[in-house]
Amino acid sequence: MTGGRKSFPQPDSLMDEFALIELITTRLDARPGAMGGVGDDAAILEIPEGRQLVVSTDTLVEGVHFEVGALPQDVAYKSLAVNLSDLAAMGARPAWFFLALTLPDLDSGWIESFADGLNEAAQAAGVALAGGDTTRGPLSITITACGLVRPGEALLRSGARVGDVIAVSGSTGLAGLALDERSRGREPAPAALAALNRPTARIELGRSLVGLASSCIDISDGLLADLAHISRASGVGMEVRLRDLPCPPELAELPQEDRWNLQLGAGDDYELCFTVSRDRWDQVEQSAKAIGVPVTQIGEAVQGEGCICLMPDGRVFQPGRAGYNHGA
Amino acid sequence: MTGGRKSFPQPDSLMDEFALIELITTRLDARPGAMGGVGDDAAILEIPEGRQLVVSTDTLVEGVHFEVGALPQDVAYKSLAVNLSDLAAMGARPAWFFLALTLPDLDSGWIESFADGLNEAAQAAGVALAGGDTTRGPLSITITACGLVRPGEALLRSGARVGDVIAVSGSTGLAGLALDERSRGREPAPAALAALNRPTARIELGRSLVGLASSCIDISDGLLADLAHISRASGVGMEVRLRDLPCPPELAELPQEDRWNLQLGAGDDYELCFTVSRDRWDQVEQSAKAIGVPVTQIGEAVQGEGCICLMPDGRVFQPGRAGYNHGA
Repeated sequence: MTGGRKSFPQPDSLMDEFALIELITTRLDARPGAMGGVGDDAAILEIPEGRQLVVSTDTLVEGVHFEVGALPQDVAYKSLAVNLSDLAAMGARPAWFFLALTLPDLDSGWIESFADGLNEAAQAAGVALAGGDTTRGPLSITITACGLVRPGEALLRSGARVGDVIAVSGSTGLAGLALDERSRGREPAPAALAALNRPTARIELGRSLVGLASSCIDISDGLLADLAHISRASGVGMEVRLRDLPCPPELAELPQEDRWNLQLGAGDDYELCFTVSRDRWDQVEQSAKAIGVPVTQIGEAVQGEGCICLMPDGRVFQPGRAGYNHGA
Repeated sequence: MTGGRKSFPQPDSLMDEFALIELITTRLDARPGAMGGVGDDAAILEIPEGRQLVVSTDTLVEGVHFEVGALPQDVAYKSLAVNLSDLAAMGARPAWFFLALTLPDLDSGWIESFADGLNEAAQAAGVALAGGDTTRGPLSITITACGLVRPGEALLRSGARVGDVIAVSGSTGLAGLALDERSRGREPAPAALAALNRPTARIELGRSLVGLASSCIDISDGLLADLAHISRASGVGMEVRLRDLPCPPELAELPQEDRWNLQLGAGDDYELCFTVSRDRWDQVEQSAKAIGVPVTQIGEAVQGEGCICLMPDGRVFQPGRAGYNHGA
């Protein structure tokens, strides 16, 4: 990664001049020389020659994307992870991110924990805070993440071809299970909570799919909803075999239909869903194995449009939820 | 400007799938070929060789940075303008921006007007929407703007030297006057309202200062507060002569002290404040004249630290407000 000049100009009077920003940046500035001194109106990024910049931006709002009272370190971790997941889906190598943090009031303990969670996610991905803004208002976090690819490398949604294998990384439905459990007043299983609060961006997998996958997306809205994006952008139909959906143990005891609905419709999984021509599958499987991320074939791109899900008996399943609505 | 691939992946179920995003992007996509089709998890930007990327991010929150019920086209215009102003202060040429829009509900009329205001500001600056996110929550707008400079071109806060001239573009205090009038239940003068709602980013002036100004900042927090940033970053003191502050006609009738306080302390002006060595002043003045933006010498960088303001009789003025606090 190349260096840059950090910008974090506006404390907006939440506390003494630079105190808030310092609280955040000192907990994140683990790279010697990365920071020219907090200040300046904007950050300066050195883009290496022969690279394109891949940019993603996502907002998380309290009470919509995370519950009121959620742990600040989890909120921070997830805010960055969902953006890194977008970069992963493009096959990009994360480089920098910008933080726009809106806080209702000043709670330095909260802010320190938030900065720690952000640092944890940033360190894990090798990405550096390059600038941001802090303002007063209802709690929300907008992160803009920047990654790098060589020209033409980026994975798009539009390249799926008839006959391609559809695959997913890891498994789906765990984050949705946590939300379901919580909405019923039950404490979710630890693995489900971890999936919801600490999603792992599949950065290395995304990188390994460059030159192999014909299309790729991260599963944020729900497997079927996201697969429908690929379907539309590529002009192909999608046929998913339900018996092949990788099932986490926490979902194994659910009634079959509930399980499928969670696995197909619940969002917030941040796994990658991708297509690849059949003759490249072995390569995909090998590199995924080397990275230590399971990948599973779950269906095939077909002629036509839209997505259908086939039950083990060959009949078409009608999913009961059409994608995860954040609080809607 | 080079092309890019637009990303706007997540409608977040505020309305039909892509309808909200289409509402926005169709009103902004005035560049043939700039848009590869809405979709993909992130945007791809082609950074021209030999350029650094300058990135600014700013959030505007309803009830904090603009009043509840403000016109959506003004809110949009200002959201982009304040970010372009940061790029202007760096001497960068704006290229792209990303929009993270959080809306409490769906009001397609509001959204259309918002998109129109955004388009107006974008067209004026020659900057293209490259991607974004839409979510549900309390109304707020985070824009991340990207500009380009040649390596070493960027104007910083840290270059002011003892003996440099301090200068401002346009005049200050009009936006503050509008806020003051409004807080007293009076309708502000049109010029004051325009300054508050439709600030002009001084992009061309910023570009013309490249290679001339020793430091630069945009006046968002208030002239003195922003000058203090330059003072601190450069390690010099600042001496402002109050009789030289350019005074807009709307402020001319105010008691002298009120006027100075507004001109020194109120924020939201988005003029440029910069320093330049005395022997380059003629060049600055000529290029500013060619652009049609007035620039005025208001003081001098001196040995020491901090900012002092000298009244016409030579005594030091103690400002009554220390910088504009957004709702704080």
